[in-house]
Amino acid sequence: MPTASLLIIGNEILSGRTADKNLQYLALKLEEKGVRLQEVRVVRDVEADIITAVNTLRTQYDTVFTSGGIGPTHDDITTAAIAKAFGVALHQHPDALAALQAYYKPADLNAARLKMVLLPVGATLIPNPLSNAPGFQLENVAVMAGVPRIFQAMVDFLVPTLITGDVIHSKTITTQHPEGTIAAFLEELELATTGLSIGSYPFFTETGRGTNVVLRSTVLSDVEAAGGALEAYLEGLGGKG
Amino acid sequence: MPTASLLIIGNEILSGRTADKNLQYLALKLEEKGVRLQEVRVVRDVEADIITAVNTLRTQYDTVFTSGGIGPTHDDITTAAIAKAFGVALHQHPDALAALQAYYKPADLNAARLKMVLLPVGATLIPNPLSNAPGFQLENVAVMAGVPRIFQAMVDFLVPTLITGDVIHSKTITTQHPEGTIAAFLEELELATTGLSIGSYPFFTETGRGTNVVLRSTVLSDVEAAGGALEAYLEGLGGKG
Repeated sequence: MPTASLLIIGNEILSGRTADKNLQYLALKLEEKGVRLQEVRVVRDVEADIITAVNTLRTQYDTVFTSGGIGPTHDDITTAAIAKAFGVALHQHPDALAALQAYYKPADLNAARLKMVLLPVGATLIPNPLSNAPGFQLENVAVMAGVPRIFQAMVDFLVPTLITGDVIHSKTITTQHPEGTIAAFLEELELATTGLSIGSYPFFTETGRGTNVVLRSTVLSDVEAAGGALEAYLEGLGGKG
Repeated sequence: MPTASLLIIGNEILSGRTADKNLQYLALKLEEKGVRLQEVRVVRDVEADIITAVNTLRTQYDTVFTSGGIGPTHDDITTAAIAKAFGVALHQHPDALAALQAYYKPADLNAARLKMVLLPVGATLIPNPLSNAPGFQLENVAVMAGVPRIFQAMVDFLVPTLITGDVIHSKTITTQHPEGTIAAFLEELELATTGLSIGSYPFFTETGRGTNVVLRSTVLSDVEAAGGALEAYLEGLGGKG
């Protein structure tokens, strides 16, 4: 199965100033495509940290997505760090330059903005429909903006180009029973069917508590059969709430 | 300065089913305490992945927080993985057992729930005011529940026990100018004051675009001076929006 990881780059996430929205967006798109997102890391705007993380992840997963740090300001250091991680030079990418020239008046295309078209040699572009400064792909690493609307557009561009895996079918069953009560049954149910994965997620709200049980498999009929068995079991316990 | 990392354990985050809420909560609490959250990782419910991540992070940061995987079901494997990571055995922790005995009727204290009091030898407890099953600390690793309300209570218990660092003062200035326009000024402003860090975060909404500039330093007067200089500069550009 094709695998992927996400590297989120940005002090604003680690300080708590900004709540990340990119992880879940990417995760759901990869899930639809049958690509397994297996690891996420969040690192600071520190060159050595970015290089270490990207060089580790790109050897472990089929595709690495990054978010953040490709803008025009001094704290945008991702592109240069990626070039160093790969040991390649930066050059002015002609198509990236053309995209910025189409967007900015010549007087506004200052040194800061021109930094955004200095890309690693060998990179191919990921279009940016909002502000034209592109992301890029270098081997199996896709480097994207951190701004959620741009990140999302870039993901939507990339996901159709990925190798498709077997899509996981999923069913969530909610019960008022706490997970400790149903734990033994859930384990038996998972063990009874190869490839079936059961997640158990307790919730606590102001009005009560309970458990969401998530059944997952690439075989839809296995999910449906296990769901039926669980519902019958819960009915025997006195209703699923 | 004291440093920290967070290890989020759970397939439900990587599949996109659940949006993580724990990162930002912890980040803001550490920020108040002057502790630097420097890295976050999200890994699957896979023992080897948990062990590798926790053994890497605990040597690199003063404190490692984990979230998720300490409940009673078969997919809760964090506690056993942490014990393996440290090379210590699990034992029934008497105070953890007492906490569960106070919460459950004897008939409800089944094998699944008793799993939650099998803790690594040497662990000390982190109280759980919601459902009594405790988290624990082992050396510099704090193992907490993934359910946000429980995670938050455990963070609130732990944070006052951490060594305090110099608190970072922060000021956000919002302008309608795109960041490319103000990039050169921001870089000069950062370089002019040792210890001042400036983050630039563009935003795009339905009604317009602009930039949030975040000034950060442990020296409040430096933040105020830089904020004043930036506001004067923006006024010169034609209003800060």
